[in-house]
Amino acid sequence: MHFGSDNVVGASPKVIDAIVAANGGAMASYGDDDLAKGVEKQLGDIFETDVSVLLMATGTAANGLALACMTPAWGEIFCHHDAHVMTDECGGPEQWTGGAKITPLPGVGGKLTPDVLKAALEAPRRGIHSVKPASLSLTNLTECGTAYTPDETKALTAIAKHHGLGVHLDGARFTNALVGAKATPAELTWKSGVDVLCLGATKNGALAAEAIIFFDKALAETAHYRRMRGGHLLSKGRLLSSQFKGWLADDHWLTLARTANAAAARLAAGIRQQNAMRLAWPVNGNELFIVMPESTEQKLLAQGFKFYRWRHEAVADGEKPTGDEVLCRFVCSWQTTDAMVDQFLAAASKASA
Amino acid sequence: MHFGSDNVVGASPKVIDAIVAANGGAMASYGDDDLAKGVEKQLGDIFETDVSVLLMATGTAANGLALACMTPAWGEIFCHHDAHVMTDECGGPEQWTGGAKITPLPGVGGKLTPDVLKAALEAPRRGIHSVKPASLSLTNLTECGTAYTPDETKALTAIAKHHGLGVHLDGARFTNALVGAKATPAELTWKSGVDVLCLGATKNGALAAEAIIFFDKALAETAHYRRMRGGHLLSKGRLLSSQFKGWLADDHWLTLARTANAAAARLAAGIRQQNAMRLAWPVNGNELFIVMPESTEQKLLAQGFKFYRWRHEAVADGEKPTGDEVLCRFVCSWQTTDAMVDQFLAAASKASA
Amino acid sequence: MHFGSDNVVGASPKVIDAIVAANGGAMASYGDDDLAKGVEKQLGDIFETDVSVLLMATGTAANGLALACMTPAWGEIFCHHDAHVMTDECGGPEQWTGGAKITPLPGVGGKLTPDVLKAALEAPRRGIHSVKPASLSLTNLTECGTAYTPDETKALTAIAKHHGLGVHLDGARFTNALVGAKATPAELTWKSGVDVLCLGATKNGALAAEAIIFFDKALAETAHYRRMRGGHLLSKGRLLSSQFKGWLADDHWLTLARTANAAAARLAAGIRQQNAMRLAWPVNGNELFIVMPESTEQKLLAQGFKFYRWRHEAVADGEKPTGDEVLCRFVCSWQTTDAMVDQFLAAASKASA
Amino acid sequence: MHFGSDNVVGASPKVIDAIVAANGGAMASYGDDDLAKGVEKQLGDIFETDVSVLLMATGTAANGLALACMTPAWGEIFCHHDAHVMTDECGGPEQWTGGAKITPLPGVGGKLTPDVLKAALEAPRRGIHSVKPASLSLTNLTECGTAYTPDETKALTAIAKHHGLGVHLDGARFTNALVGAKATPAELTWKSGVDVLCLGATKNGALAAEAIIFFDKALAETAHYRRMRGGHLLSKGRLLSSQFKGWLADDHWLTLARTANAAAARLAAGIRQQNAMRLAWPVNGNELFIVMPESTEQKLLAQGFKFYRWRHEAVADGEKPTGDEVLCRFVCSWQTTDAMVDQFLAAASKASA
Repeated sequence: MHFGSDNVVGASPKVIDAIVAANGGAMASYGDDDLAKGVEKQLGDIFETDVSVLLMATGTAANGLALACMTPAWGEIFCHHDAHVMTDECGGPEQWTGGAKITPLPGVGGKLTPDVLKAALEAPRRGIHSVKPASLSLTNLTECGTAYTPDETKALTAIAKHHGLGVHLDGARFTNALVGAKATPAELTWKSGVDVLCLGATKNGALAAEAIIFFDKALAETAHYRRMRGGHLLSKGRLLSSQFKGWLADDHWLTLARTANAAAARLAAGIRQQNAMRLAWPVNGNELFIVMPESTEQKLLAQGFKFYRWRHEAVADGEKPTGDEVLCRFVCSWQTTDAMVDQFLAAASKASA
Repeated sequence: MHFGSDNVVGASPKVIDAIVAANGGAMASYGDDDLAKGVEKQLGDIFETDVSVLLMATGTAANGLALACMTPAWGEIFCHHDAHVMTDECGGPEQWTGGAKITPLPGVGGKLTPDVLKAALEAPRRGIHSVKPASLSLTNLTECGTAYTPDETKALTAIAKHHGLGVHLDGARFTNALVGAKATPAELTWKSGVDVLCLGATKNGALAAEAIIFFDKALAETAHYRRMRGGHLLSKGRLLSSQFKGWLADDHWLTLARTANAAAARLAAGIRQQNAMRLAWPVNGNELFIVMPESTEQKLLAQGFKFYRWRHEAVADGEKPTGDEVLCRFVCSWQTTDAMVDQFLAAASKASA
Repeated sequence: MHFGSDNVVGASPKVIDAIVAANGGAMASYGDDDLAKGVEKQLGDIFETDVSVLLMATGTAANGLALACMTPAWGEIFCHHDAHVMTDECGGPEQWTGGAKITPLPGVGGKLTPDVLKAALEAPRRGIHSVKPASLSLTNLTECGTAYTPDETKALTAIAKHHGLGVHLDGARFTNALVGAKATPAELTWKSGVDVLCLGATKNGALAAEAIIFFDKALAETAHYRRMRGGHLLSKGRLLSSQFKGWLADDHWLTLARTANAAAARLAAGIRQQNAMRLAWPVNGNELFIVMPESTEQKLLAQGFKFYRWRHEAVADGEKPTGDEVLCRFVCSWQTTDAMVDQFLAAASKASA
Repeated sequence: MHFGSDNVVGASPKVIDAIVAANGGAMASYGDDDLAKGVEKQLGDIFETDVSVLLMATGTAANGLALACMTPAWGEIFCHHDAHVMTDECGGPEQWTGGAKITPLPGVGGKLTPDVLKAALEAPRRGIHSVKPASLSLTNLTECGTAYTPDETKALTAIAKHHGLGVHLDGARFTNALVGAKATPAELTWKSGVDVLCLGATKNGALAAEAIIFFDKALAETAHYRRMRGGHLLSKGRLLSSQFKGWLADDHWLTLARTANAAAARLAAGIRQQNAMRLAWPVNGNELFIVMPESTEQKLLAQGFKFYRWRHEAVADGEKPTGDEVLCRFVCSWQTTDAMVDQFLAAASKASA
């Protein structure tokens, strides 16, 4: 039973159906297919504004390309220290930008706070001897499974814009944040100051499909050259556009995320009943971070449950794992069932006894 | 009717079936799936040697990454002036290598000859003031639809190796060359001095699937970091490995290429019957380059036939288009039928009258 | 006796004196010294317009930085095939720009002509699949020792600007061109469409001093970050600014160039008297390119005269070296005396006999 | 009176004399002059081993180039959070390496400790998703004016080497560390595990002269290409080699550093007598970091004394500036006299009263 990540499962049948349906006949290559234009229009409708959209096969590429459109080689990118762009992309943003510097900032549960961002931006700099603050990269759902509200996002982007920064939102699990929020896609993004969103479908039911959505269309000016040159323009673009078509149709993307979030909520509720385990911070989407004794962790792994150990930095002081406790990440997907959750909870209960 | 490229059609049903078949259940992410290991083994069998394989979604990315493994930032890459890496990748190899220089060389019908390569490598250089010769990039099937024999390849790679160069083979249409050759995959590649092959499945029946095959496995040492960092490691790797599984099974890849080549041969035979048209050079695969009057070209385009105008540099002196003649490229795919070819030939005959 | 290059001699005593004179006392570091401001003002006066100036230690760095300010990583730079940026900088512009492509163009005697540039810019491109034309790099005095007139420059920059290109002028020997021209510094540069000039002092009497002069001051916006990051901002900036101060004072820079040009003219006159030697093209500055029998070349080298063999591409058809003839470059400097020239001519006469 | 930096003064007269002496006559260009060979030999003698030496005009360039020889684009560089390569080079190392990541580590008084380095290297990584640990960059004299002993250096480099890292030593003020240490140049460098030293002469009496000294000569293999391509190979190399000749002759470099260190020691002794001021950490060279009330700082600045405010991170817990205290950096140079020091101390005493 796999709680390791939401990328170990395949695609939703509806997404597969859409790939199959788009396979017949000749179609313009290199992203000029009508399906892609339809997806761009549909995303514009969903986000209630005119957008420029580039479809990509990976989130790592989408993030790097988006950041490069707002960050020169001598620029500085600010993000949480657990951000995917900081820790999991093997220096991808550095490559896309030609060597920009990423400055990691702390924040409990993966969320940046205005005071920390403000302090970083107001710290003394030495003119051209220092790199130049250029962009803020947020993640929603955060890497810790927490969510920013529109107000929280606004508070951060206001500071960023005051200092002339562009704002990038890594939305690998944006849909999980969206369905848990009392807010529209627009409110969670451009209405809160986001300039470009990398909307991930892959982790939420697609096979390999991400959309860079430019709300600030001027930022997209160089994006098409960057994508081509980076080798990310698929000749048979229908592979990407068809996935988005199937994913967006009939609110399927929302349904998938609701399923994953519900599984995570059920799991969280069960964990709260356990004496030997506790949640490291609130669960706002489909990820849980559980503090447990190492002995429990080992027993569960030995039984074949899959999940990963996590670093402690984002746990609040006073709540950090102590003694032999460890922090572990659990991710639910649109394929996670109640039965799976219950089976894990039963095993966890026994393992902690 | 589309003779514009072999990437305007979708994937072969067998490839689609393989994607669908691989969609169920949990599978290791980021290329560690068993399917990928199977593909690596199968390619090793086909090429009769131990290989390192990285699966990629685009040929532009595969070429750039492969070249970067053998070319430092101050390196020089030699290739034909019509090579895809030179003219169609928006500077992709330059990005992957950190700024290497590509030196284009002439050659009739897209093929380099030993004398030209030798002269380029023996030209005086100025030590560190000049970029350093680092790699030879060949294409087979060439961009002009001609093919290198193993002996021709060997003659070029021997010169390259004498000067310490690595040898890259862009095989976007390698299968079309293979089925037209009296040679094995091994003879066309490592037995003829090729260090790394970018084997394209996309143009020959897949949706988006390319394999970088390192025959010199030491060259692959940095490749995994480069792929990750470039954003080219798909989290759901099964999308790529399943396509290769379906494509390679039961010699399906060969069948597809034979179909496309047969269509091209039929088209070529018909063109040879036409007074007002002629082939610019031999047809060895699924591409034809036809010299015709501009008025004929315009009539055919007006009737909805799709094909592209091409540059003249690779036409031999004495055979170049003259007067109002133009050079046009036609590509057949595994979906091109005899009926399509015959319909075009009839129209061409009429348009030239 | 050294005709190999104008960089094998040291600096003019007046330049050395200026370095010594500026050595005392505390002075703002990192280019903020008053001397530097004075040089910027003086260059503005000389060029009759407001300019942004960055002082650099090498011409290779100046060229690369200047081109990077007008050429994105996916940009295309057009220049003569003998241009220093193309052949002698080990890929420097590629590094500064993040991987731009340099397209070399032909031209007799090192000079581009409007028809060649026009054809290059009007050749069919494939949108984002091709690199994007971004800049024209001219050299005056050219690498072949010829000079562009303002009208010739204007004809080229007009085409460049029509296609949206920036114009860079490599002026490693600009002063040699200037003193030979019936034109002002302004007429040779911004009044003829040049956006940025790299004015070299090193070859003409300094030790290591080049000025990037931005006539289009908007282009300079990113230059200071690029210089710092490239490690080209000297902490004791007075080393560069003092050289320029001494070099510009009392028209010393013009005097130095006139001396070198006069030596070259004397040498050229002598060569025209020789039966076995001929000039490959006109001599407009301090460089000569002489066609001579290889046997003569070998005798002169054996006697200790220093000069270099050169490639033939820029020689006009019909005038190229034939049989055992070779093309050799001779450079005169501000230290070349009449006696040196006459000694060489006597030896040449004897060697050809 | 300027305590701002040791780069606001000019060069020692002996260095200027050497520049002047080397100015006459023809000399091989581009670093092939005999002076450069002599400097390489002399540095080999001083460091008691065979070395490869590249002379450079700036320390920022030297550091970046040296790090690039041991750090791939996907590499990770570890250094102190106050290191020049981290905070003062506008992303220079990122440019030279093609986008490596620099990980800053804490340490009181600018010095790394084994436990911190070990923890950083033993922290869990995610294979190719993480950047790859590649190099350790130390600074001696540190940016905080403290010095590593050979034993301290050895303890750090042993950990680095255990993890396969290369070791770079930024020696912008290496001579100041050397003359304060009971150790030889060899003991402070390669005998303690340093692979490459960037030896700065600029701050200690030259105008612009740094030497990259490769103890691991294999690391130098690519260095000459990198220097050329970066625009850092001076055509009149004598400018750099002559400075080193004058600087090294008769132990002049040691004499200069001793003078600067003595001034700093005198200043430190005076500060220790002041009630309202204290030293943040030991003074091992020519830099002092003084904690003082902001009001005192303001009075001293108003009187024309020059020095800079500094960040607090490297101050030990319990000793950090409190209330209205600030931390200020003072640098003595080879031109700082006892009279200057005493004048400042008198003013400081009065300002604190």
